Amino acid sequence: VSLTLYDLVGRDDRRFSPTCWRVKLALAHKGLPFTTVPTRFLDIRKIGDGGFKTMPTLRDGERWVTDSDAIADHLEAAYPDRSSLFGGPGGRTLAEFVRQWVQVVLHGQLARMVLLDIHDHLANAADQAYFRKSREAQLESRLEEVVAGRDERVGPFRASLEPLRQVVRSRPFLGGDAPLYPDCMVLGAFQWARSVSPFAQRLLAADDPVRAYLERLLDLHDGFARSTPAYPP
Amino acid sequence: VSLTLYDLVGRDDRRFSPTCWRVKLALAHKGLPFTTVPTRFLDIRKIGDGGFKTMPTLRDGERWVTDSDAIADHLEAAYPDRSSLFGGPGGRTLAEFVRQWVQVVLHGQLARMVLLDIHDHLANAADQAYFRKSREAQLESRLEEVVAGRDERVGPFRASLEPLRQVVRSRPFLGGDAPLYPDCMVLGAFQWARSVSPFAQRLLAADDPVRAYLERLLDLHDGFARSTPAYPP
Repeated sequence: VSLTLYDLVGRDDRRFSPTCWRVKLALAHKGLPFTTVPTRFLDIRKIGDGGFKTMPTLRDGERWVTDSDAIADHLEAAYPDRSSLFGGPGGRTLAEFVRQWVQVVLHGQLARMVLLDIHDHLANAADQAYFRKSREAQLESRLEEVVAGRDERVGPFRASLEPLRQVVRSRPFLGGDAPLYPDCMVLGAFQWARSVSPFAQRLLAADDPVRAYLERLLDLHDGFARSTPAYPP
Repeated sequence: VSLTLYDLVGRDDRRFSPTCWRVKLALAHKGLPFTTVPTRFLDIRKIGDGGFKTMPTLRDGERWVTDSDAIADHLEAAYPDRSSLFGGPGGRTLAEFVRQWVQVVLHGQLARMVLLDIHDHLANAADQAYFRKSREAQLESRLEEVVAGRDERVGPFRASLEPLRQVVRSRPFLGGDAPLYPDCMVLGAFQWARSVSPFAQRLLAADDPVRAYLERLLDLHDGFARSTPAYPP
């Protein structure tokens, strides 16, 4: 097995990408050893044959796979003897609902709180300019305006986590007693904030069962995700 | 196989209970023939040995099972040769996340739009008095106040369906090409509104992919759920 993950990187080796985190957590879940190639936004085009446009991209021997969910499917198919990421076909299909919930509810709201912090932690001025231009075009707003008033959005954000909270207050993970790929998606979203933003500390109340759940995820695989320090440390 | 479901009933034989609908749809999914016993709130205590407090309750031969999710688990275990409700252990555990989402996002918001219509369609004055007293105690508010201003809540309700919308715009069901038990949960919630409330017509925009998805669910099993008429017809 020779697995190499191209992993978005900011300054001080910060690994902030939520979808790269999904894949790293999926690899750890399967107990597969892998190396990462820290990759700046403007270096994505230099990967492999130059045809990749987004991260994450995995090289597994001679095979290249891009897009986090395609990579998860590849790992599940190529390493069926390792811990399952989905727990069967029903788990695979319902993971899509969790994915959309993570995308809409977590990424959608977290972006409006931490996007400027991500910008500020990118590797260099060129990556920052690329990031600002592409995200501001997407959101039709300056990054400073995107995150303005974020304090007032903490309450609605916490309220919107209620379905997740109800699950993880009665069982350790979305996957039950052990995690599944949907747990990797949730932690990926929070790692996005945790890796670059002091605001991450304020996202959840101290006694929120979601906080305890994230701590359990950070503990997995000998503290694999926790080993990337939070910012500020 | 001798299956009897005790099913909440209102006037004109209206079957409004979202959790009873889950079970009826699960039974239809498994292709199991069953009969229903229309049951008013105040008659729940007369079922079986008198120990049941909530609906739905299923009698399967000599065995009694109560609570919709316990019934789904019973059906999956007792009739493993029929279409699966969960598609394996991962599907079972992720169904819990969908259940909490349905509970918080669908039931939570729909209650604030249709609870008075449900009251108005109950079988008799005694059931209405019971329903009003118990729900008003739960919600700490009169039913009329609970649903006041419901027009303004349609927009946020539609917005909150976005994770579901994203899934069913690209595939027929949450279960993929075929439904799973989580699809029964979603339709159950909408049947609650559809069976007693003219407001059900206004919950979704005409071109909402969620509407097309619900139509697909109503079509299943030769129009099984559609055969219960909407109110008004």
